[in-house]
Amino acid sequence: MQYVDVMIVGGGPAGISAAIWCKRLGIDHLLLEKKNELGGQLAKIQNEIIDYPGLYAENGQAMQMVLTKHAAKLNCNCKLNATVLKIDEAQKTVTFEQDGKLEVIHFRYLVLASGAGQRRLEVPGEREMLQRGEDYSATTDGQLFKNKTAAVVGGGDRAFEGAILLADAGVNVFLIHRTQSFKARSEFITLANQKSNIKILTDTKVTAINGDHRVTSITLVKDDGESSCLMVDAVFVRIGIKRNYELVEGKVAIDPQGLIVTDQTGKTSNSSIFAVGDVCTDSPLSSIAASVGQGATAAKFLASLLV
Amino acid sequence: MQYVDVMIVGGGPAGISAAIWCKRLGIDHLLLEKKNELGGQLAKIQNEIIDYPGLYAENGQAMQMVLTKHAAKLNCNCKLNATVLKIDEAQKTVTFEQDGKLEVIHFRYLVLASGAGQRRLEVPGEREMLQRGEDYSATTDGQLFKNKTAAVVGGGDRAFEGAILLADAGVNVFLIHRTQSFKARSEFITLANQKSNIKILTDTKVTAINGDHRVTSITLVKDDGESSCLMVDAVFVRIGIKRNYELVEGKVAIDPQGLIVTDQTGKTSNSSIFAVGDVCTDSPLSSIAASVGQGATAAKFLASLLV
Repeated sequence: MQYVDVMIVGGGPAGISAAIWCKRLGIDHLLLEKKNELGGQLAKIQNEIIDYPGLYAENGQAMQMVLTKHAAKLNCNCKLNATVLKIDEAQKTVTFEQDGKLEVIHFRYLVLASGAGQRRLEVPGEREMLQRGEDYSATTDGQLFKNKTAAVVGGGDRAFEGAILLADAGVNVFLIHRTQSFKARSEFITLANQKSNIKILTDTKVTAINGDHRVTSITLVKDDGESSCLMVDAVFVRIGIKRNYELVEGKVAIDPQGLIVTDQTGKTSNSSIFAVGDVCTDSPLSSIAASVGQGATAAKFLASLLV
Repeated sequence: MQYVDVMIVGGGPAGISAAIWCKRLGIDHLLLEKKNELGGQLAKIQNEIIDYPGLYAENGQAMQMVLTKHAAKLNCNCKLNATVLKIDEAQKTVTFEQDGKLEVIHFRYLVLASGAGQRRLEVPGEREMLQRGEDYSATTDGQLFKNKTAAVVGGGDRAFEGAILLADAGVNVFLIHRTQSFKARSEFITLANQKSNIKILTDTKVTAINGDHRVTSITLVKDDGESSCLMVDAVFVRIGIKRNYELVEGKVAIDPQGLIVTDQTGKTSNSSIFAVGDVCTDSPLSSIAASVGQGATAAKFLASLLV
C-alpha cells in the first residue's frame, strides 16, 4: 500500500501553502483535490483581491493561477479529481476515488484543508437551481435583476448586506428569515428597514424553490403552518458558512460553535490530524493570508515531528 | 493629543500585513517603524525566497520592495524613523522619537510586531564589530574566509549548521559553546565531529572580541577560570533568537520559553495589546507566511471589536 508522511486533503490556499512548505522542508507529501484544479474558494472570488500582502490580484482566478504555478514550479505532489471518501484515523488511511478507481493510501500525519462553503437550505429545487448556474453574487449581479424580484434568505450580516446591495441596484427584495431575531449588525438592520424596496418576512421558512428552467417562485411556510407561494426571479441563500469537516466528524474535537479545535500549529485533538484554513477558522477571521499562514505553520511543525 | 484606534509597532511582514488589513477594513491605524524603510528582517535575507505562496522573490530585499509598494498603494499610514521609547498600558499611550522630537499618541489597541533578531553576546568589541559591518552569513560569506580562521559561537542547530557550511567552504572553524550539552540535532553534531577543520571547544565563554579595524582575536575563559586568546578572522555569533518584546515586558504574560502568550487572534493577557509575527512566534514555526497571516487575523479581529 502506498504511504506518505503528510497527506493534505484540499487544494485551496491553506492546502497549497502546506504543500509548498512540505516541499520546501523536504517532507514526503501528497495533496488530494476533488476538483480538476487547485485554488478552492478562490475560483469564486469575482472582485479584486487587494489584501493578500505582496500579491495584488484582479480576481480570485488570477490569484488561483499564481498559487497553482507556485506549487507546480516547486513540483509539489498533487492529485486532482481525487475525492476523499473516508479518513480512517485508527488505520491512518485515506480512501479516495480518482477516475472511477478507489485507492487507499497510508499517512503518518493528515492535514485537513477542506475549506468551507455556503450553507444550503437543502430544499427541493435548490440543487437544480445551482446546477443551472443560478448562483448569483449580490455585489456584481444586481443589475441582472433590476426592477425584478429577488428573495434573500438569512438573518446575518451577509443576508442583510446582500439585500441592501440588491435594493440599491433597483431590485425588489424579500428578505426571508426563519425567526424574528437577527444576527446581523444593527446598522445593517436599520438600513434595510429604511429601504422601501426591501420587505422583511420573519418566522418564515423556504420549503421549496420552484421553476423548471429558471427560478419562478418559492414556497414559504410560516410558523403558524400557513403556506404560500412567492413569485421571485432569483434566490440568494445567505444562511451562513458550512465548514467541510464531515470527513473527520467524531474523530476530532469540535467546539460548540462548530469549529474544529486546534492549537496554534493546527493540531487537533487527534495528534495525527491537523486542520488549517477555513475548515477550522471562524468566518470573521478567515482570510487568504490567514489560511496560507496556517498551512505554512502546520508544515513547519510537522517537519519538527518528522526529523 | 493624537489618537489612533490601532497602533502597530514594527514594520516587518507582520506589521505590514496588519496595516494592509487595517486599511482594507477601514480601521484608523498608524504603523511606527524605527528604521528608514519597511521590511524588518527581510532586509537581511540573502537567499531566494521560494516559500511565500504566490510570490517568488530573488532575495529579502526584493520581497521587501513588493510589500512596501503594497502598503504604499493602499495608502497605509506609516511613520519611518520612529523609535518607540515607551508603551504605557494604563494610559494607553505610545511615546516615540522621530527626527529628534518626542511624540505621544493615544491608542485604543496596540499591535506589537517588533520582530526578533540574533541574540548577542553583549561582550566588549561585539558592537564595534557589528558597526564595522563584520556581520557575516555562513551561507554566502564562507569564501571570504577560505583558509582563514573563524569562530562560531553557540550550541544549537544554527551554530552547527554555520560551522559545517564554513568548514565546507574551506574555513578553519572553532565552534565555541559555554556548556558541554548541545541543543543541535544529532546529525549536525555527528557531521561536525567528522570534519577535520572544525574544532569544538566546550565549557568555554567568549568574553571579548578584539581588533581595532577588523576582528583579530577573541578572549576565551574556560569554566575553570583559565583565560586565553584565540586568533580569528571572523566571529559568527549563533546563540539563538532574541524577541524584541522589551516594550511590553511586565505588561503582558510571557511563558517559560520566553514567548508572549497570545490566543489565536494575537490577543495577549492585556486585552488592549496584541502581538503578531516573530516577537511572539517560536522560531521553528516562524515564517513570512505565518507572520503575514497573524497580522491579517489580528486586524480582522480588531475590526470586529471596533464595530
